[in-house]
Amino acid sequence: MNTASDIDYARYDHIRPILWTGEALQLLDQRKLPFVVEHVVCHDSDEVAASIHALTVRGAPAIGIAAAWGVVLAARDVQAADGAHALQQLEPALQRLNASRPTAVNLAWALARMRRCLSAAGADWKALLEAEAQAIAEEDLAANRHMGALGAGLIEAGSGVLTHCNTGSLATAGFGTALGVIRAGMAQHRIARVFAGETRPWLQGARLTVWELQQDGIDATLIADSAASHLMKTGAVQWVIVGADRICANGDTANKIGTYQLAIAARHHGVKFMVVAPSSTVDMETVDGSQIEIEQRDPGELYGVGGTRTVAEGIAAWNPVFDVTPGELIDAIVTERGVILNPTAGNMRAAFGG
Amino acid sequence: MNTASDIDYARYDHIRPILWTGEALQLLDQRKLPFVVEHVVCHDSDEVAASIHALTVRGAPAIGIAAAWGVVLAARDVQAADGAHALQQLEPALQRLNASRPTAVNLAWALARMRRCLSAAGADWKALLEAEAQAIAEEDLAANRHMGALGAGLIEAGSGVLTHCNTGSLATAGFGTALGVIRAGMAQHRIARVFAGETRPWLQGARLTVWELQQDGIDATLIADSAASHLMKTGAVQWVIVGADRICANGDTANKIGTYQLAIAARHHGVKFMVVAPSSTVDMETVDGSQIEIEQRDPGELYGVGGTRTVAEGIAAWNPVFDVTPGELIDAIVTERGVILNPTAGNMRAAFGG
Repeated sequence: MNTASDIDYARYDHIRPILWTGEALQLLDQRKLPFVVEHVVCHDSDEVAASIHALTVRGAPAIGIAAAWGVVLAARDVQAADGAHALQQLEPALQRLNASRPTAVNLAWALARMRRCLSAAGADWKALLEAEAQAIAEEDLAANRHMGALGAGLIEAGSGVLTHCNTGSLATAGFGTALGVIRAGMAQHRIARVFAGETRPWLQGARLTVWELQQDGIDATLIADSAASHLMKTGAVQWVIVGADRICANGDTANKIGTYQLAIAARHHGVKFMVVAPSSTVDMETVDGSQIEIEQRDPGELYGVGGTRTVAEGIAAWNPVFDVTPGELIDAIVTERGVILNPTAGNMRAAFGG
Repeated sequence: MNTASDIDYARYDHIRPILWTGEALQLLDQRKLPFVVEHVVCHDSDEVAASIHALTVRGAPAIGIAAAWGVVLAARDVQAADGAHALQQLEPALQRLNASRPTAVNLAWALARMRRCLSAAGADWKALLEAEAQAIAEEDLAANRHMGALGAGLIEAGSGVLTHCNTGSLATAGFGTALGVIRAGMAQHRIARVFAGETRPWLQGARLTVWELQQDGIDATLIADSAASHLMKTGAVQWVIVGADRICANGDTANKIGTYQLAIAARHHGVKFMVVAPSSTVDMETVDGSQIEIEQRDPGELYGVGGTRTVAEGIAAWNPVFDVTPGELIDAIVTERGVILNPTAGNMRAAFGG
């Protein structure tokens, strides 16, 4: 069997959702994929916040990286003798960026890191701030490659896997979290079959994941979200592999709506369940999932697809974007710091402190 | 609390998916609802078979009724001294109708009933055949009203319910199976909240169910199929109520893809699970769910919605239309013959013989 060092990472490097030009932030417009490849260029931090809110850029790690560059853009017009003074002037922009999506913790994590950078910086704070954003992106890519190898190591040869939403290059600085494990698992010939759920209402699986894997020559089979249990019953799948928007101190994990349902179905069928996310997704301040604010989005997202309206006028809809999977339904949490099997408050604390 | 006799059935009588004009069969085109109300007129049995296959008419009971009228249409050009001779000539048409959808047993059941009618008929076989089709439709409506009262009787006042696919007037001769229980439960003030899953890929819930209930002044809240477990966790739902395409001798039930997943989630949350279907859906010849042929439809159904394509070219999709819910995950099967709690091969045999 091949090992991590055999993986040709350059092969997975052609999708760049977030590109810093030195002057502006260029975001691949994920609302228009896969048929229209178009970029939105953000010249200030409010344009970045609006792009995060509008899902032009999405995926917990990608949101954090975009927000970090948003701080760099906000700093453009600021004159200050040192970072601490700059931070005072940047506060409103930081808060608007922080409010652009509520559930993913990576956003707050990246902004906190930019704050810390500023607090410690002297006269060269602008250069340090840009270097910090660059580091956040580079470390995310490195973390993904490492997690890919760690997660793939848990998978027996010949396995089938099911993933949900999009956790790939599009959702990160590159390679992906859950898709990183799938890429590594395919490269190492551990994974024989890949299935992807559509991920209603926004169809990240249907629009983004199968397309992104197709770019790498990885065949994934699309299923309706509600076909997952029937698929598990056929024996085609040995692991469900997903990303995370927030992992609590006890392992409870907020992720795309439908993840919780997959975890229940996986346990019912004896299928293993893996969460893959950088340690920046771990929030030891949040004791358990009951404390997580679940973002509700426009009910209109359920009224149709693209330009096609499918639902009669005057119908109510309930559209939570995330749900919480209890730690006890998770077999493995993979971060760049290592693998936690059967997460509990105890082994999470041992790994992440707090 | 009101009782069944208080229900004003006329209120639920304005949607007619299948109308026999005396000359032709008029089918409400369910592919085009809710925005286009258009009928397809079938003048021969092959047009009926094609309409069943194309989902112009759908819903297990409705398919059986349409097929019965298809036999009446096929008989138009047949000259025979008695029913038995007519049956020989009608055999090819009967077989084509029977092959139009594989999973729902009501189709085969209705055709078997038309065969029996013919076998016993003399010179007036054409009139008897037409009367038999009419009886199948009328008995279905009566069964639905009775099942509505029986099923509603299981529900405690103030309950929330979740349904899947469309099991209403559109899927039957009227009133509906699972939706009949919901209509009766609303009329009796037992049900306080109704949720409907979108039901990918064909969106029967989004397009048909919430629209159909809206016609009756019943507010239903639409959810993504994958939000069902999160909804159950909030405590908003006490019963999942669904229809059936085939109920086996041990209670295993084939129904729209996603039903099995709802049953697993319901059991996980202590939510009750009810299957509502006329006894024509019960197939005591099929020992258990492993013997049911699951219809696979065009993967293209997952590639988009209406005119909007959402999935890149060259992607594989797996599109089973039904799944099987094991009897042990079902709390109640309601037919017009009564309620079976916790179905097993034993209590099913006691109720249905075989």
